[in-house]
Amino acid sequence: MPFVNIKITREGTTPGQGAATAEQKAALIKGVSQLLLDVLNKPLDSTFVAIDEVELENWGWGGLPVPAYRKQQESK
Amino acid sequence: MPFVNIKITREGTTPGQGAATAEQKAALIKGVSQLLLDVLNKPLDSTFVAIDEVELENWGWGGLPVPAYRKQQESK
Amino acid sequence: MPFVNIKITREGTTPGQGAATAEQKAALIKGVSQLLLDVLNKPLDSTFVAIDEVELENWGWGGLPVPAYRKQQESK
Amino acid sequence: MPFVNIKITREGTTPGQGAATAEQKAALIKGVSQLLLDVLNKPLDSTFVAIDEVELENWGWGGLPVPAYRKQQESK
Amino acid sequence: MPFVNIKITREGTTPGQGAATAEQKAALIKGVSQLLLDVLNKPLDSTFVAIDEVELENWGWGGLPVPAYRKQQESK
Amino acid sequence: MPFVNIKITREGTTPGQGAATAEQKAALIKGVSQLLLDVLNKPLDSTFVAIDEVELENWGWGGLPVPAYRKQQESK
Repeated sequence: MPFVNIKITREGTTPGQGAATAEQKAALIKGVSQLLLDVLNKPLDSTFVAIDEVELENWGWGGLPVPAYRKQQESK
Repeated sequence: MPFVNIKITREGTTPGQGAATAEQKAALIKGVSQLLLDVLNKPLDSTFVAIDEVELENWGWGGLPVPAYRKQQESK
Repeated sequence: MPFVNIKITREGTTPGQGAATAEQKAALIKGVSQLLLDVLNKPLDSTFVAIDEVELENWGWGGLPVPAYRKQQESK
Repeated sequence: MPFVNIKITREGTTPGQGAATAEQKAALIKGVSQLLLDVLNKPLDSTFVAIDEVELENWGWGGLPVPAYRKQQESK
Repeated sequence: MPFVNIKITREGTTPGQGAATAEQKAALIKGVSQLLLDVLNKPLDSTFVAIDEVELENWGWGGLPVPAYRKQQESK
Repeated sequence: MPFVNIKITREGTTPGQGAATAEQKAALIKGVSQLLLDVLNKPLDSTFVAIDEVELENWGWGGLPVPAYRKQQESK
């Protein structure tokens, strides 16, 4: 019965890609479901996974929206 | 003061409909608020409901994104 | 595949009862699962429900923890 | 390590504005991160914030979707 | 910046064990953080994980609390 | 109608204190409700806040449970 909610920023891992691909999201679903089977013996069929993609300006770290946080870190 | 978060896949219940309708979402809101009144005596005015609609490829079951999971189940 | 998270305060509905009873929680689970079947045609077997019970001092409304909020409302 | 999830309705604060602005969201991120520093001594760098913007018809209060709830309140 | 919330039932994987062990929870944290590094290139240091352990009677499946659901399945 | 969920680790800010105090939690509730009033014009009465206190061993950062993560950071 596990439920896993993965919140990631909506952005790609390569230039020109605006978001995680369907393949990457499938890999997250597969990996975390397998992890629950391996560690806690939960059958794959009893795990739900929901991935939330959050806009960069809606995600904060260090008191700043992510784009501003990254600029700050780079300039350090 | 209850807060209810309902996560559903973004899809319709009839062909050609791409998502739950406003009427269906209103029925969910009404039904679950009424349930909290009936069971726990919570006034309607003190219940919040938020419905999240999750893309099919962002929802996993059985270690697979929902579209692949459904194909697997159908072929069983 | 719906996932429903119901957050309620940890308190009873009758004096001397410190929390929702198992029967009340079963009624919430049954009611909201049935609602998703009635409204969106979701089979009972594909709905997960998780009930979180939150301490009164951890829940805020009107800028106050619930016990203080209730006192304020009563004195109005 | 705090994680703060702020769910708001997707709507603006002035006519013609359809959603919270980037500046408003930055102010929420800054304010709540600072609050965790002030109250619990959590360094800004150890707080994550995610803002979810929920469509008005997906948010319920008083057993009704928000647009219907507001009409009901206004007519009181 | 990913945030992962894993909700599991509070129960052990072997008789006499009432909950997931600290080692099992560490394995979940390690595994899902590594997964986000492998799939989306997210540094370990930028992933937060929170595990919620939910009482069996607070978790519903098939319209029933988990203990009743399991009995129903076994008797099938 | 905002709903704010604040997840913090269950630990005190001074030695011998095992968790955030009721006063600290009241300050979080007051502060974040006021923030939503200041930034988005949300009346105090329309904001709910729920604070979740998560055991240290249930919270992960850097691929490790928090106690192990802190030791690793201190030894750097």
